[in-house]
Amino acid sequence: MDKQAIINLLQAVADGAMSPEKAYSKLRLLPFEELGYAKVDHHRSIRKGVPEVIFGAGKTAGQIKGIASAMLENGTRSILVTRLDGETAKILSAELDMEYDHVSKTGVIAKDRDKKLVGSVVIVSGGTSDIPVCEEAAITAQVMGSCVTRLYDVGVAGIHRLLSKLDVLSEARVVVAVAGMEGALPSVVGGLVDCPVIAVPTSVGYGSSFGGLSALLTMLNSCASGISVVNIDNGFGAGYLAHMINTMKGVEE
Amino acid sequence: MDKQAIINLLQAVADGAMSPEKAYSKLRLLPFEELGYAKVDHHRSIRKGVPEVIFGAGKTAGQIKGIASAMLENGTRSILVTRLDGETAKILSAELDMEYDHVSKTGVIAKDRDKKLVGSVVIVSGGTSDIPVCEEAAITAQVMGSCVTRLYDVGVAGIHRLLSKLDVLSEARVVVAVAGMEGALPSVVGGLVDCPVIAVPTSVGYGSSFGGLSALLTMLNSCASGISVVNIDNGFGAGYLAHMINTMKGVEE
Amino acid sequence: MDKQAIINLLQAVADGAMSPEKAYSKLRLLPFEELGYAKVDHHRSIRKGVPEVIFGAGKTAGQIKGIASAMLENGTRSILVTRLDGETAKILSAELDMEYDHVSKTGVIAKDRDKKLVGSVVIVSGGTSDIPVCEEAAITAQVMGSCVTRLYDVGVAGIHRLLSKLDVLSEARVVVAVAGMEGALPSVVGGLVDCPVIAVPTSVGYGSSFGGLSALLTMLNSCASGISVVNIDNGFGAGYLAHMINTMKGVEE
Amino acid sequence: MDKQAIINLLQAVADGAMSPEKAYSKLRLLPFEELGYAKVDHHRSIRKGVPEVIFGAGKTAGQIKGIASAMLENGTRSILVTRLDGETAKILSAELDMEYDHVSKTGVIAKDRDKKLVGSVVIVSGGTSDIPVCEEAAITAQVMGSCVTRLYDVGVAGIHRLLSKLDVLSEARVVVAVAGMEGALPSVVGGLVDCPVIAVPTSVGYGSSFGGLSALLTMLNSCASGISVVNIDNGFGAGYLAHMINTMKGVEE
Amino acid sequence: MDKQAIINLLQAVADGAMSPEKAYSKLRLLPFEELGYAKVDHHRSIRKGVPEVIFGAGKTAGQIKGIASAMLENGTRSILVTRLDGETAKILSAELDMEYDHVSKTGVIAKDRDKKLVGSVVIVSGGTSDIPVCEEAAITAQVMGSCVTRLYDVGVAGIHRLLSKLDVLSEARVVVAVAGMEGALPSVVGGLVDCPVIAVPTSVGYGSSFGGLSALLTMLNSCASGISVVNIDNGFGAGYLAHMINTMKGVEE
Amino acid sequence: MDKQAIINLLQAVADGAMSPEKAYSKLRLLPFEELGYAKVDHHRSIRKGVPEVIFGAGKTAGQIKGIASAMLENGTRSILVTRLDGETAKILSAELDMEYDHVSKTGVIAKDRDKKLVGSVVIVSGGTSDIPVCEEAAITAQVMGSCVTRLYDVGVAGIHRLLSKLDVLSEARVVVAVAGMEGALPSVVGGLVDCPVIAVPTSVGYGSSFGGLSALLTMLNSCASGISVVNIDNGFGAGYLAHMINTMKGVEE
Amino acid sequence: MDKQAIINLLQAVADGAMSPEKAYSKLRLLPFEELGYAKVDHHRSIRKGVPEVIFGAGKTAGQIKGIASAMLENGTRSILVTRLDGETAKILSAELDMEYDHVSKTGVIAKDRDKKLVGSVVIVSGGTSDIPVCEEAAITAQVMGSCVTRLYDVGVAGIHRLLSKLDVLSEARVVVAVAGMEGALPSVVGGLVDCPVIAVPTSVGYGSSFGGLSALLTMLNSCASGISVVNIDNGFGAGYLAHMINTMKGVEE
Amino acid sequence: MDKQAIINLLQAVADGAMSPEKAYSKLRLLPFEELGYAKVDHHRSIRKGVPEVIFGAGKTAGQIKGIASAMLENGTRSILVTRLDGETAKILSAELDMEYDHVSKTGVIAKDRDKKLVGSVVIVSGGTSDIPVCEEAAITAQVMGSCVTRLYDVGVAGIHRLLSKLDVLSEARVVVAVAGMEGALPSVVGGLVDCPVIAVPTSVGYGSSFGGLSALLTMLNSCASGISVVNIDNGFGAGYLAHMINTMKGVEE
Repeated sequence: MDKQAIINLLQAVADGAMSPEKAYSKLRLLPFEELGYAKVDHHRSIRKGVPEVIFGAGKTAGQIKGIASAMLENGTRSILVTRLDGETAKILSAELDMEYDHVSKTGVIAKDRDKKLVGSVVIVSGGTSDIPVCEEAAITAQVMGSCVTRLYDVGVAGIHRLLSKLDVLSEARVVVAVAGMEGALPSVVGGLVDCPVIAVPTSVGYGSSFGGLSALLTMLNSCASGISVVNIDNGFGAGYLAHMINTMKGVEE
Repeated sequence: MDKQAIINLLQAVADGAMSPEKAYSKLRLLPFEELGYAKVDHHRSIRKGVPEVIFGAGKTAGQIKGIASAMLENGTRSILVTRLDGETAKILSAELDMEYDHVSKTGVIAKDRDKKLVGSVVIVSGGTSDIPVCEEAAITAQVMGSCVTRLYDVGVAGIHRLLSKLDVLSEARVVVAVAGMEGALPSVVGGLVDCPVIAVPTSVGYGSSFGGLSALLTMLNSCASGISVVNIDNGFGAGYLAHMINTMKGVEE
Repeated sequence: MDKQAIINLLQAVADGAMSPEKAYSKLRLLPFEELGYAKVDHHRSIRKGVPEVIFGAGKTAGQIKGIASAMLENGTRSILVTRLDGETAKILSAELDMEYDHVSKTGVIAKDRDKKLVGSVVIVSGGTSDIPVCEEAAITAQVMGSCVTRLYDVGVAGIHRLLSKLDVLSEARVVVAVAGMEGALPSVVGGLVDCPVIAVPTSVGYGSSFGGLSALLTMLNSCASGISVVNIDNGFGAGYLAHMINTMKGVEE
Repeated sequence: MDKQAIINLLQAVADGAMSPEKAYSKLRLLPFEELGYAKVDHHRSIRKGVPEVIFGAGKTAGQIKGIASAMLENGTRSILVTRLDGETAKILSAELDMEYDHVSKTGVIAKDRDKKLVGSVVIVSGGTSDIPVCEEAAITAQVMGSCVTRLYDVGVAGIHRLLSKLDVLSEARVVVAVAGMEGALPSVVGGLVDCPVIAVPTSVGYGSSFGGLSALLTMLNSCASGISVVNIDNGFGAGYLAHMINTMKGVEE
Repeated sequence: MDKQAIINLLQAVADGAMSPEKAYSKLRLLPFEELGYAKVDHHRSIRKGVPEVIFGAGKTAGQIKGIASAMLENGTRSILVTRLDGETAKILSAELDMEYDHVSKTGVIAKDRDKKLVGSVVIVSGGTSDIPVCEEAAITAQVMGSCVTRLYDVGVAGIHRLLSKLDVLSEARVVVAVAGMEGALPSVVGGLVDCPVIAVPTSVGYGSSFGGLSALLTMLNSCASGISVVNIDNGFGAGYLAHMINTMKGVEE
Repeated sequence: MDKQAIINLLQAVADGAMSPEKAYSKLRLLPFEELGYAKVDHHRSIRKGVPEVIFGAGKTAGQIKGIASAMLENGTRSILVTRLDGETAKILSAELDMEYDHVSKTGVIAKDRDKKLVGSVVIVSGGTSDIPVCEEAAITAQVMGSCVTRLYDVGVAGIHRLLSKLDVLSEARVVVAVAGMEGALPSVVGGLVDCPVIAVPTSVGYGSSFGGLSALLTMLNSCASGISVVNIDNGFGAGYLAHMINTMKGVEE
Repeated sequence: MDKQAIINLLQAVADGAMSPEKAYSKLRLLPFEELGYAKVDHHRSIRKGVPEVIFGAGKTAGQIKGIASAMLENGTRSILVTRLDGETAKILSAELDMEYDHVSKTGVIAKDRDKKLVGSVVIVSGGTSDIPVCEEAAITAQVMGSCVTRLYDVGVAGIHRLLSKLDVLSEARVVVAVAGMEGALPSVVGGLVDCPVIAVPTSVGYGSSFGGLSALLTMLNSCASGISVVNIDNGFGAGYLAHMINTMKGVEE
Repeated sequence: MDKQAIINLLQAVADGAMSPEKAYSKLRLLPFEELGYAKVDHHRSIRKGVPEVIFGAGKTAGQIKGIASAMLENGTRSILVTRLDGETAKILSAELDMEYDHVSKTGVIAKDRDKKLVGSVVIVSGGTSDIPVCEEAAITAQVMGSCVTRLYDVGVAGIHRLLSKLDVLSEARVVVAVAGMEGALPSVVGGLVDCPVIAVPTSVGYGSSFGGLSALLTMLNSCASGISVVNIDNGFGAGYLAHMINTMKGVEE
């Protein structure tokens, strides 16, 4: 029952074709979605040009193509596919206008190449092995419409590398700090900047890194203010949140 | 060596009183802080009126008084003291202009009661036992200058309570979602709003809640987008970050 | 906005005093609870005579009295208070008609002593130290209206004790199996009966029992069919669920 | 020594062919099973038409065929085989009357296609990746004789999807709530219905989901009443228990 | 129904007063215990002079006295009470013939002081802090009837202390090796002797000893043969098992 | 420096060719092994006919053959090879007199087929998936010289299967109880017998069995007396210890 | 059997009073300690003036006094007592020449106040709460004879504080880096210096610091080279090892 | 901006071509590295002949060749490549002067075969399976310039093997003790030597070794003094630190 249906129902009440009591009992059961409740911006893609997202892991090329086609028909301007393996990407690329990135394993369907990128999301990483997660975050934020700067391989074991980029960091509206192993980077970054820092632990490491647990705990226990944490290897989540913060409207004072 | 000292040194070079080589070797060792490096806004309290923070746990009334006095002498306008037990607060209140809150165990010294609160931070909690953590977040954000709305006891086991407050949620610029036990609240909230959600697990619970670990893991694994997590019971961290996001300037498009 | 308010609104539409469009925009925001959505049986206590429950831990005698008084005024017939320490109970007992049980730390306010107990919930426990949790389950189920049989101290290390009670077990509609330490009791019971078994791990034990974790894992990994598990020491949850299953209406075939 | 053997022995006593003392010493050692002790409904398949179950993992096609043939010869009407990989299923299907389901990896041998399905088991899932576990539960309950309704992809991050199905949920006699990642679905469902909810954590997720541990802990710590939990990915266990509860006879009041 | 009751029943069959079929249906339900099934030596204390054991933790002096009195009346010769705090012991000592040991927190009621101690149980410990657990093991084995030798403070960080006692170790029929912290002692002992070694981890330690978990894992992973492990701090269990092994009859070759 | 070298040295002292002081300083540094210290029965295989053991995992056929050949040349009568994969076994069997068991993945080289097996080790298992670990224990104990009885598939979820074998259990000198999943079998067995029970957790299971951790914790927390535990899947360790206990000489009383 | 006893034995051989064979069999069993084996520097305190150490936790004032007196009589020059609570210290101070430090809870008996301190151990800490552990390390190293420099409160969340002390760090022969919470300090320090860094996690923190586990894992996973880790809160161990490294003799090239 | 650039800038000030204020603002932003801050010995390879290190895991032969070539062009004398699989090594060996070791999976490019090895690093291991980690440590220390002695297969379950090598151990300047399973070796070694011991847990083991966690905890909890721990399987880290300690200059007394 969509908006029109409800108004039709109300019109029937207005026309005397339905009693208020009958209308009440109908309204009481009407599906939520149609009322416009819940998530007002459910179809925000159409209105804002923000792309929809498909989590590609475990889906076949056929399934992804089906979902994407339906989205495009409904007016979605562009679609981000994450965790998309190379083989599936190859099949999709042959049939759809998709740009695939091998490092982050993301694909962008019907990419809006003229989109203006705004603000400043800075993505810093501890080591080269963290780059796939960084790139998932970077591409997510970019496709959403954020301007992204990458500062890779600036881990805390060689702090001068990070310090030599203070000018770049100081321009950030939000920083995504990605690190595996000991995961100390967000703490150091958090002490250097005055904007929100999104910490992303990665599963990079061995032995007592326990698949990213060590880095995760480090980040949660950070002494620096302004830091929050997403799941291990969750580059997409960090990029999405970074874009959300980056593109905030100014507060009214 | 502060800015003036460096300029004096350079002046000596300009005056021919010091060779460039000698100046180089002196510069090479000059302490970091004085260069103005690192955290440009280190003394932001003076310039912006943002209060300084003292972590009260494990400090005596005398120590806190000493730190606070020094801060006030240096121009700090107001000071937030967190994790301050009632007994220590009583002593401090007798000697300082401090407003103490028994629920959150926070004190505000030299509170700026005329401060204009801006934006909208909404703090939601699952149960009444989570309120101390909520209030630590709320008071932190308020003292910083954010306008805070509280929605307590709207846990997911009675989802209608949360849904009946959708209008309040939809006005938020940032939501702090606090929950112990199963910690599912941030996921549901994250699906209802389009602004950043800061998830705070609490140690409320028993048995397999393992001191908040259960809620922490739930929040890290949230399927909703736009959520990030701080440490267990870290109301201050959430409030601080919420204020940071809430008071962002608008992005230039 | 309650049912009457909605009907009034619809009446206004019927009367031509409000346009369907205006009515729609008002309906779109009406609070959930009033629509009767969500949990239809939210006030089931009034209709069914099932008592309400107050989680007593961390509440003062005054708070509990306040909540209970409000409930009683709203027609609640009896109220179960769980995790109620002896001292608070003493204060409450002086002011309310409350029956307190020292073992399970539960109180029943305005107990319906003529309530007919139906069906058969059998509660078995491994050792005497598990009895407080057992009694929380037993009293919960009884106050709800279930007939409860107790089989305590029939742990698996002396299996003959359990086997000598097979006749009692075979009469059960649902069994609550409570055990700490190794937590093996539910598995054995699950192999002996054909009704649902609710397993309750307890924090009884030392060393590698890790506060009930050992018993919890044992129960989750049970090879027997028909077993499910609640949180460590969650006697209330087990008793509540046991009553729910015990009092089911027969399936229509 | 089966029933007849015992009666023969007693007859010998009656006939004076054996002394009571001699009979006692023989009885004292007789095997348990023959006495009909333990699980009275051990052969319930024959009497009730409930199918037997074979755990297929790690068994060869030959072994499964052997066990199934013996069961069928003993009168079993239909047999459920769980965790049966596709290749083994292919071999079995060629030799037995078996219906195989690729999603849940279950096979049903000698399926009773005319069986009347009774009651109402509703299975809800958080995401599409949880469907294999859901289907294991669904097929288990169906083969046992329960009527099953599926509500998939109604996770808490888009709560309106779940709320739009309240009418279906309210008809359930028992709900199986399946979720990976943060595992919050059972808590929300538990707050919406008044029947038992069986929570099934799945190993779906990555990073700090730790193979389903995160979802498991969430479910154990649920604030909602009437919820209990089975092992990670244990669709069969949930389906079996759901059928057991669904088909309960009504309590005598 | 005890032995006599069964024989009476059989006599009734022999006398023709009861049909074999009727007798069968009665036998089918008779309680287990009376059949003498399960643990034949359930009353072994009476026959063998082995003491009964009461787990004292959480029991009042009155409860312990009650249980002990009943045991003594039933012929038990002596009773070991473990985990008995000093205060309760003081009360008991005033009323019963009890010998209390402050180190191990064990009491022996009606101790058989003339009991001959046989065989050789050697108890080794890593440090002085482990001695309470050692003594619980030692007194348990002694009260049961084993001859015990103590080798304390021979931890692996000063291996010469252990090696200087090789002659004592080589006489052992079974060794109980008790250690906290790193828990390496059983491995070294296991490499030095050819008899069974019972490893007891203790909760002695700090930091990453995690309440004995570190020592427990060490012992479970021992490379030496002939080692098995009991629960953390379980001196009683180790002493009981050591006595069981120590007093074995010789194998018939 | 072997025995002869030391005697030569002492002879030189006796002959006056070396001063006692010089001899002392030489003795002070002599290697341990040669003194015959440490493990008196280091070469017990030669004297007792007990086989040596080679841990096959990670060793090539060539390496195993080399070690075995050296052992046989030194008088070892038979050799047990554990964790030996089928392919390596095939190669070895072609070159050595080796009997290979595919279930337990053990090989016995130069097996003494006339060895008399003594005593009674009973091996019980919960399910059929535990059989490889059981057989590793069984073959180890048998090759050492113990008489082994197998009671497989007698898990606690169908306790009547175990109880019907009480006569076999009551004859055991030592029981090895093997179980995965919930690991409850040793507790039940420990309550039924009066001999030592060696508990072996297996990695059989899924979900929250966490690779055997669940079963391990269950066994460590057993309430039954006389139980100790070895590492997960350590059939060899259990079989070795079982043989050690089984073949003990009788205690002198 | 001490050195003299062995020489006497050898003299008996030299005198012909004992045969070499007889001497061999006696030597074969002589205790280890007396041979001077194992730890050559067991009595190093006497020779080097390095103090002995008493772990004070759990020892009474009387026990500590007894041990200390015996040590002093045997020539020990000074004694370090760690984990000594204030009350016990007060009693000891009244009877012994002991200097007690309230922060680190260490006491030094018979302190050598003229001892020359050599080399350079630098101790850095993240926050003020870590100071007790730092001081335990500092006093340990100092009493041993190392020159110690303290750099406290230079945590990574304000990296400029650490960087402003680079000159002090660059003089260190060994650094002890102490940190709780996220534990990132050793990594940063390890990237700034070229000497060994001993990392000490502390139990300072809350929530997911899990009693120091978070900091411990961080340090073990450090990307910087030259770092190793000691137990949580193990200031003594770090100070001892730091002294050992600090006072190494130069390598011969 | 390197040293020369800064001096040029200062020269411009000296020449009056740039004002001191302008110079200050330029200096304030100059990159860190060029100032020579942070790690003074960043290019120590060139000055000291210590090889650079490339972490080979996850890098292609092409990438490694590229990095190595750049290093060699910059004057690096030799390069250690760790965690280099055999296949990649084969490709590299064809194009570079590289010596590859299959056991430790390390390659040394442009090895300085005439390098004098100094001091004494002794590497001890518990079992043969630990040898790959040992060799990574050994080759690292050797390539750096340390003289390395290997004592393999001297685990604590046969302590005489270790004791027979006391003379070798007593010559060590630093010991690297490598062990999996129970990880007890470093404790025993730490009690036998008076030099620093670097403990390396390995992931060798099964069951409750939990990928090296058991050994790690054992080592962290060691009672012996002078021990510190590196990450699981971190042979490189241990070898690097061992070399650092081994080649220390003597302390000035």
